[in-house]
Order: sequence, then C-alpha cells, then structure tokens
Amino acid sequence: MNEFDLIKRYFHRDHHGPSVIVGNGDDGAVFQTPDGRQTVVSVDALVAGRHVPSLCPPEGFAARLLGRGLSDLAAMGADPRYFLLSLTLPNFDAAWVDQFSEKLHQLAVQWGVDLIGGDTSKGPLAAHVTVIGEIDAGRALGRSGALAGDQLWLVGRDLGGARAYLEVLEDRADEHAAWAERYWRPEPLLDAGRALVGCAHAVIDISDGLCQDLDHLLSAAAAPLRISLDSATLPLAPGLMDQFDEHQALEFALTGGDDYCLLAAIPVGVAAPHGAVCLGQFEAADDTLILLDDQPLPEDWVLGWDHSR
Amino acid sequence: MNEFDLIKRYFHRDHHGPSVIVGNGDDGAVFQTPDGRQTVVSVDALVAGRHVPSLCPPEGFAARLLGRGLSDLAAMGADPRYFLLSLTLPNFDAAWVDQFSEKLHQLAVQWGVDLIGGDTSKGPLAAHVTVIGEIDAGRALGRSGALAGDQLWLVGRDLGGARAYLEVLEDRADEHAAWAERYWRPEPLLDAGRALVGCAHAVIDISDGLCQDLDHLLSAAAAPLRISLDSATLPLAPGLMDQFDEHQALEFALTGGDDYCLLAAIPVGVAAPHGAVCLGQFEAADDTLILLDDQPLPEDWVLGWDHSR
Repeated sequence: MNEFDLIKRYFHRDHHGPSVIVGNGDDGAVFQTPDGRQTVVSVDALVAGRHVPSLCPPEGFAARLLGRGLSDLAAMGADPRYFLLSLTLPNFDAAWVDQFSEKLHQLAVQWGVDLIGGDTSKGPLAAHVTVIGEIDAGRALGRSGALAGDQLWLVGRDLGGARAYLEVLEDRADEHAAWAERYWRPEPLLDAGRALVGCAHAVIDISDGLCQDLDHLLSAAAAPLRISLDSATLPLAPGLMDQFDEHQALEFALTGGDDYCLLAAIPVGVAAPHGAVCLGQFEAADDTLILLDDQPLPEDWVLGWDHSR
Repeated sequence: MNEFDLIKRYFHRDHHGPSVIVGNGDDGAVFQTPDGRQTVVSVDALVAGRHVPSLCPPEGFAARLLGRGLSDLAAMGADPRYFLLSLTLPNFDAAWVDQFSEKLHQLAVQWGVDLIGGDTSKGPLAAHVTVIGEIDAGRALGRSGALAGDQLWLVGRDLGGARAYLEVLEDRADEHAAWAERYWRPEPLLDAGRALVGCAHAVIDISDGLCQDLDHLLSAAAAPLRISLDSATLPLAPGLMDQFDEHQALEFALTGGDDYCLLAAIPVGVAAPHGAVCLGQFEAADDTLILLDDQPLPEDWVLGWDHSR
C-alpha cells in the first residue's frame, strides 16, 4: 500500500466543520477564524522507544498523541478546532494502522477536532501532531504572569500514576488498570482550561513533571517567586502509597511526567475550577525556589522526566 | 544539554512580527489573522535515511525541510507567515545543531516566516515542519478545478536534477553542483504561487514526481481529463542529457521527486507567470490518462518517487 492509498483509506474523513474551507487532501488545508478570535497552535512528538515503549498498543499511541497535544491547548484556555498528523511507520501493519486511526478519529470527535492534514512516510514509529485552537482575542492563558500572593492550584485528577505505570510495565501492569489508564489515556482538561480564562494569572500543563513545569511557571514570572508545597495536599494516583514507599511515591507525583494536570496561579479570593486543589502560595523571593514541606527538594527533582535522557 | 536548554539556545528568537501574540516558549503560540483573510496550513516530514541520505549536511537538511514545506504554501497561493518544528535527534552534536538552526533562521528571514513553536526529543534524525500562511478569503488555489481546454503550465526552473543527484551521490557528487543545489536547496516558488491566484484553475507542487503529481491534479478534476506531454518542451536540469541516455533523463524529469516546481491548469488566453513553460492541453476523456509524445507512459512512471518504498 503506498502513501496515498494509506492516507485515503485510514485518515481521510469528508465531514468537516463549516470553518474548514479546504480539508485533508490538497497541498494545504485552509480554515477561517472568526473575527475577534485568535489562533492557538502547538506541536508535539510521540516517539516509540522514547516517549512510549517500543511495542505500544495502537489505541494507546493514538490516545496519548492526541490527548497530549490537546493538553497544550487546554493550558492556553483555547477551544480545540483542528489537528494535523505526521506519521512515520517502520512497515505497513494493516491491523495496527486500522486500530490507531479508528481510535484517533473517535477521540477527534469526542474532543471536537477535525483532522485537516498530514504526512506519512516510512521510518521509525513516531507521530508528530499539530493542534490548532481558537480563543477570543487577547484572552489566551500564558506561563508568565504569576504574582507574589497568588495561590498555586492543581487542576486534574491525580499525580504520579503514569510514572508508576512505567515502573510496573514489565511484570505487573495488569494489576494496575488505573495507572495504565493515566499513561495511555490522558484526558486533556479542555473545560477546566476554558474556565481558567480571565481567572488565572498563569497556567501550564504538567507534561514533564510537576516540579519541572512549576519551575517553568516560576521562571516565566516577571519577578522571582518561591513556593513551599505541602506534601499532604498532593492528590496521589490510587495505590501509589501502597506500592511504593513515601519518598518514591512523592518522587513519582512531583517528577513523573505525563500527568497532564494543569497548574494555575490564581489570585486569592478568585474561585478555582471545581475539584482543584490548592498546593501553596507564591511569595516574593530573591531567587526562584521550590520547597517541599519547607525543605529543599532533592537536587534532580526539578529536572523532571526528561524525554531526551 | 537538556531539551529546554537546546530549544532556548538554538531555536528561540525574540523578534516576531506584530501578528504573533504569543511566540515560542509557551504551551502554544497565538497569532492573529486579519479580517478577510484565511489561514493555510500544511505539515511535512523529513526523515534521514528515507527522504534524505542518513548522513546529511545540517544546512541541506534545514533548507530542504523548510523549502519543501513552504512549497506547499506556494502551491496554495498563500503568503507564508509562521512555522513550527518538531525535531528528533539521535544525539546532541553541537556543531550539527548550530549549523542546522543557523541555516533555518537565515532562510526563515529570507522567506518571511517566524518560528513560533516546536518540540525536540531524542530519536532517529527526523524533522517535521508545520507551515502556516495566509490568503484572502476564498482565494486559495486547490488541486481540483482543472477543465478540458485548460493548458498545463510548468512554473519553476527545471526537472530531474534532484533525482540525478541521488544517482551520482556515491562518487561524483562534487562534479554536479547544480544537481546538488536542486536537491539540497529547493526554492519555494512563493511569488509564482501568488501570481497564479485568480488566474489558474488548479495548482499542485511537484514533490513526488511530475507524472504522479499531475495524476493527482487530473484525478481531482470534476470530469476525467487526458493530456499528452511533449518531451521536447520539458526543461531538463543542466547536464541531464549529457550524463544519462534520453530515456533515463526523461524518467528522472518525469518521475524524480523533489523538484518543487508548480504545475498549473490555466485557461487559454490567460497569461501564465513569466518564464513558465506550456506542457500541453487538457482534453475531455473517458478516463484520466497521461501520454508522452502521444504514447502511453511506462507503467510505473505515474507511481513517481514513493518515499515509503
């Protein structure tokens, strides 16, 4: 099956929203952004053997790819609209591509995005997704903007489950369905992101680990900030404390990537989204600093889960 | 060097056009499209060992990556505005990344695009570029729309040079600077693409080989069309007829990919862009058909240069 047959069979869909002027199948796609709105765009790579295990289930690969991409739009407060897919496959495995594309199309409908373009070629298993959203002009959430006095809120289910899944992947994965789900089926917090527009000073999604992404948020602020996290307030993934000692469980929660929760800096007195947990309060400081229970963090925690390691 | 240091050092640029509301370095980039304009977007992969030789020069890799991506915008008649880069590197080679990023930024300035986002991770050498342009609402050129009676025009320098370069790559590449330039330094025909807006019925760029891309143009037409190409009119890359026999030279010109010329269906009497060459005239037919000098093409020529082979 050549590239064009593959695209036509598995990736073309004729139903597009009315804002899509030219869809999949031309040199480029064309879309119309309504007056008063701005376009938000982000790109993410998912490389087998690096971001996910080499032998990875097609449905999980699709769900992590798109969920992860859309999490970036959630962190901007944007309404998701479209995506483009650049896929490299080592060989043509019809069953794999069929399950991958079916899951991708199913989630695209669920999350409200149209696949409007892409590229496929032979190569090591990897997918690169470009996600495109829309937001009212001037309303996009950014990483910068956190102020001393703001509270740090965690929006999303819980922490450390995706990282814990990698730990048990080799032999006990079946016993840990919740962790597997966190890893293979991240839910982009699109509604929560929209709810943060006009209420949060700064937002980031946790893709590389809470400490590392919090460090990005702190580093992007106009003036140096410090914060002390209270370990007792951290919502841990189910079973984390049963299966690992406390230090390990906290390390997974604070440094394990792929949680796709949102971190938001919100002024005191402004309501955070329903279910959000307050992790602490930013204070003015001489240097950017994250403490845990008023103690310095282990040195490498702020490095998070570096995908290039 | 971790992912964030690498991005900051080699890929961040602070100067953005005024339409960029949020640039590189946040969860997503935000841009503003003027009223009355539409957005054009396309994604392309460049995989070492597949689209380009495994050992490829960083400047050539950058030039082919961006030139190829922008050629899609040229084929739509769009004004290029932004691009995003998702890059996987097998290891961190400072000299390679430095030369790659320098060439990329230099060409971005030359071609008028801002790098507004991206992703980097460890993996086999590959780059995926998302290019974003703008065009007046409803004016984008498409592949469909060719009509019986339209003339087929070739816009661009010449054909077959990039394919010929691959043939001599192993031992005589130095003698063939023109072919090397066609291969490593494709020029996106942005001005020509804009000139075709409102004048061409259909346009496509030649990335997979003239016959294959012409076949896409014919297949996208509302009614079946045939065309006979006149081999004497084909502008061949310099030296092609000297180094190869006529059949081979024509095969390279008609099936070799990566020429990035444009094919345009233009009504008789409408002026084609300066320097364009008329290759023939579309006729109504029972089935889509391409002839060469009124003879059927060799069977595999229409398959072109399949990157997934």
